[in-house]
Amino acid sequence: MEKITPRTLSGFMELLPPDQILFQNMVKSLETTYALYGFTPLDTPLIEASEVLLAKGGGETEKQIYRFTKGDSDLSLRFDLTVPLARYVAQHGNELTFPFRRYQIGKVYRGERAQRGRFREFYQADIDIVGDGTLDLVNEAEIPSVIYRAFTALGLRRFRIRINNRKVLNGFFAMLGLSDRAGEILRTVDKLEKIGPDAVKKLLTESGVPDSAADEVLAFISVGGNSDEVLASLEKYRGKNPDFDTGADELSSVVRLMKDFGVPEEFFTVDLTIARGLDYYTGTVYETVMLDHPEIGSICSGGRYDNLAEYYTDRKLPGVGIAIGLTRLFFVLNDCKMLNPTYPAAPADLLLIPMTEELSSAVSLANSLREAGIRTMLYGEKKKFKAKMSYADRIGVPFVLFLGEDEIANGTVSVKDMKTGEQSVLPRGEAVDFLRSRLSGAEIPPVILEL
Amino acid sequence: MEKITPRTLSGFMELLPPDQILFQNMVKSLETTYALYGFTPLDTPLIEASEVLLAKGGGETEKQIYRFTKGDSDLSLRFDLTVPLARYVAQHGNELTFPFRRYQIGKVYRGERAQRGRFREFYQADIDIVGDGTLDLVNEAEIPSVIYRAFTALGLRRFRIRINNRKVLNGFFAMLGLSDRAGEILRTVDKLEKIGPDAVKKLLTESGVPDSAADEVLAFISVGGNSDEVLASLEKYRGKNPDFDTGADELSSVVRLMKDFGVPEEFFTVDLTIARGLDYYTGTVYETVMLDHPEIGSICSGGRYDNLAEYYTDRKLPGVGIAIGLTRLFFVLNDCKMLNPTYPAAPADLLLIPMTEELSSAVSLANSLREAGIRTMLYGEKKKFKAKMSYADRIGVPFVLFLGEDEIANGTVSVKDMKTGEQSVLPRGEAVDFLRSRLSGAEIPPVILEL
Repeated sequence: MEKITPRTLSGFMELLPPDQILFQNMVKSLETTYALYGFTPLDTPLIEASEVLLAKGGGETEKQIYRFTKGDSDLSLRFDLTVPLARYVAQHGNELTFPFRRYQIGKVYRGERAQRGRFREFYQADIDIVGDGTLDLVNEAEIPSVIYRAFTALGLRRFRIRINNRKVLNGFFAMLGLSDRAGEILRTVDKLEKIGPDAVKKLLTESGVPDSAADEVLAFISVGGNSDEVLASLEKYRGKNPDFDTGADELSSVVRLMKDFGVPEEFFTVDLTIARGLDYYTGTVYETVMLDHPEIGSICSGGRYDNLAEYYTDRKLPGVGIAIGLTRLFFVLNDCKMLNPTYPAAPADLLLIPMTEELSSAVSLANSLREAGIRTMLYGEKKKFKAKMSYADRIGVPFVLFLGEDEIANGTVSVKDMKTGEQSVLPRGEAVDFLRSRLSGAEIPPVILEL
Repeated sequence: MEKITPRTLSGFMELLPPDQILFQNMVKSLETTYALYGFTPLDTPLIEASEVLLAKGGGETEKQIYRFTKGDSDLSLRFDLTVPLARYVAQHGNELTFPFRRYQIGKVYRGERAQRGRFREFYQADIDIVGDGTLDLVNEAEIPSVIYRAFTALGLRRFRIRINNRKVLNGFFAMLGLSDRAGEILRTVDKLEKIGPDAVKKLLTESGVPDSAADEVLAFISVGGNSDEVLASLEKYRGKNPDFDTGADELSSVVRLMKDFGVPEEFFTVDLTIARGLDYYTGTVYETVMLDHPEIGSICSGGRYDNLAEYYTDRKLPGVGIAIGLTRLFFVLNDCKMLNPTYPAAPADLLLIPMTEELSSAVSLANSLREAGIRTMLYGEKKKFKAKMSYADRIGVPFVLFLGEDEIANGTVSVKDMKTGEQSVLPRGEAVDFLRSRLSGAEIPPVILEL
């Protein structure tokens, strides 16, 4: 028979078992953190009607969307988890309780140009808090504090959350008489880190911004220092524009509350260059950078929006949310050798190797180990001893149990600690307690190991 | 602005938060059971090249596949988790350790005719054990024992795993001189439960099977009784066909080993009518029925196959596996009112309600509760007391904490047990211990409640 070459598509990540276990434990760690803050899990279809998914229309992503017909339905794969959330709260709004806190960790699809480290199928891990009509500012401080804890729980140490407020930026542009061009200027300013101040100024003046105003914009967004220093730099602009004043108040409240929420000062900063390209952010905005890998860009971004679901409903649903690009983060961590090489990635706590033809004794021992919650793999193949031990080595189990004729006759079991090589013979009735104490002693290390 | 009506596609399940938590805990329960037996988690792309995914070609499912082009790529959404497994082991075979045990719980896509209880996007929860060249029979007994434990852990009580062996069936047909038509006859016999013996006989004779042979087929597959009685009924056919004899030996070994694996006799039976439509099963085959809901058909099916990846590689990879149709099972359980109505589906263990404008004290209390692993939702909205309590009621948290001026001044916190209505004032430092003891006392009940 002619064979088809087995392969995955370019831009689609697929992991071998040890990495898969690390990835799965990253996901579980995020779920645990999100749940600690009262976020409820959500799962929406990967396919939606194109009319619904693309209600907002256009934009850069439209070309990237996986869109197709099935029968007479025009369908699209979701390209983020925000649009499905908007659709969900609009559709089920009367059955939900607001503020509605949900997390969703799932795959999304974008047919980006294939290049190293860019994925067409990738996991996003989102949290959002959606209010009905109003939503208090405290949520804009809690969201980054969840992210601080989420990354810390994973073992990440050298990262910083950058925050800004769109009202500050918008108000500032209003002072310069550039209100009607704020969106366009914000998109240009967003490129500051990529292309530098000179190129940004050139773009601004070329687009008709007066030279002096362009200088003021650049001076304003170039303020450095810690959060309090940046906040202090805003004081001189006060009293000229109500939006600006509101934004400055919000920003300083968010900074104060983030400290209350336990985010250490070295883990966040106010950065007036953060604007986020998307149009719908209206208050606090976030980006998160790995301090030793600025080239990667933001690994976690989001912000406050005033009207999540305006394409679906008249109900005003303001919210705040943030998304981690999980597949890319995993790729980067792997690439930077930051995944913990000693993370326990074996599929079982032990391998039980029967040394007899008859398997009943081994099966019954496996039963009692599993009953005790010990992950037990039974080796049922009739292979040579060497092949059996090589299997144990390769899958990396911490313990091997042997059950031969002697052990069965004596009611014992031989246990080998694969790390120390130490081998001991135990009464069968003591095997569970012995293994339990050894296994519970081993603390689960963090997925990420940052030196 | 004109609004787009928010909706999901027909055949795509989407759950409200309390049901979503039940569904997620079903998934977690399955993951825990699968891991107890040494299965490692796997995650493969939802999209594959059509050439790869449809290597086997044709079949009933081809019409149902979501197939489309993107750029010049011919793509398809996976319609099961078995073909991706075959592709995975063929592609990564040299990096895997055999026998390779994997579980995968993920969505698959089939554009079936829309009808109640049929889904176009649905979760499958699969386990497979794949050997390299050979795979011992013990695995064919362990697989259904995993399923027994998986369903039992979920709370299901009234189910039965039906097993059969394809060699028994094939050998029997050889005795009748119908070998070259075994596949076709098996597919007809597979309809026995749906259409009854008379219609099956009619189909058989119409297709050219001699009348007496058709009677023998029907007599053979109609044997009832417990496993041992059915096995005994096979004895009279022994010595006529080597396949049959091998199959009968295997079937009786699998029955014996399933008992060793702790599957009580009332939970499984040998049923000679089970054939499974798919062509590639070669040994033991399984179906699982809910005893009180036979109309639903099999909720978990699979079997032994000799050549998993023959379309991709010359390497012989025999295996045994089984799949639970999770979305349909959840739908059925919900429909039959078998989901536990008292399952704790609140998004948090407690709601912390600040009674002051200033939130610092509340935020710091929330920090220490979360530090202690207590899922804490902070209510940050400036609403009337009644609205705050109504929120607590609606999300169903077991505890509410109040922090007002008095509590802050006295270093206390008020705790309300929402179940008993009991309210008490505690020193702030004791809140964690108090809540921990109350929460850990509450045992998590099973997801399914079968009366």
